[in-house]
Amino acid sequence: MSKSVFYHAGCPVCVSAEQDVVTLIGTENVSVVNIGENRDRILEAEDLGVKSVPALVTPNGNVLHINYGASIEEVKG
Amino acid sequence: MSKSVFYHAGCPVCVSAEQDVVTLIGTENVSVVNIGENRDRILEAEDLGVKSVPALVTPNGNVLHINYGASIEEVKG
Repeated sequence: MSKSVFYHAGCPVCVSAEQDVVTLIGTENVSVVNIGENRDRILEAEDLGVKSVPALVTPNGNVLHINYGASIEEVKG
Repeated sequence: MSKSVFYHAGCPVCVSAEQDVVTLIGTENVSVVNIGENRDRILEAEDLGVKSVPALVTPNGNVLHINYGASIEEVKG
């Protein structure tokens, strides 16, 4: 299985969800991207269908929006 | 690791998320509960902090609300 990608923006909701997701699916199965810091990856996340963070994009391209930290628009600031 | 519990209500958003979650964390690691059919478990879900379905309750008790299918109030009908 290829990796899932977990997009977040460093918010408390994001950090909590990240810990749960990494524990559940295994650290080796997920790449973690902070689009608050790596702002050149915001567009990548949007293109994949990420509307808010935290969100997990599965290997088959589905987007799981998990809880709610911030919208992509809020991350763009 | 004890099992996570995935609560859903049979909605299309729920079914899609269920397939992703089961694939990601492994069918042996998650119990799936349809609270639209097993209505006596709605209260259990609420007590665990589930506000909407689909939702995954992790072994440590955290609730991950995944995407948005329906609120608990809508499931109660």
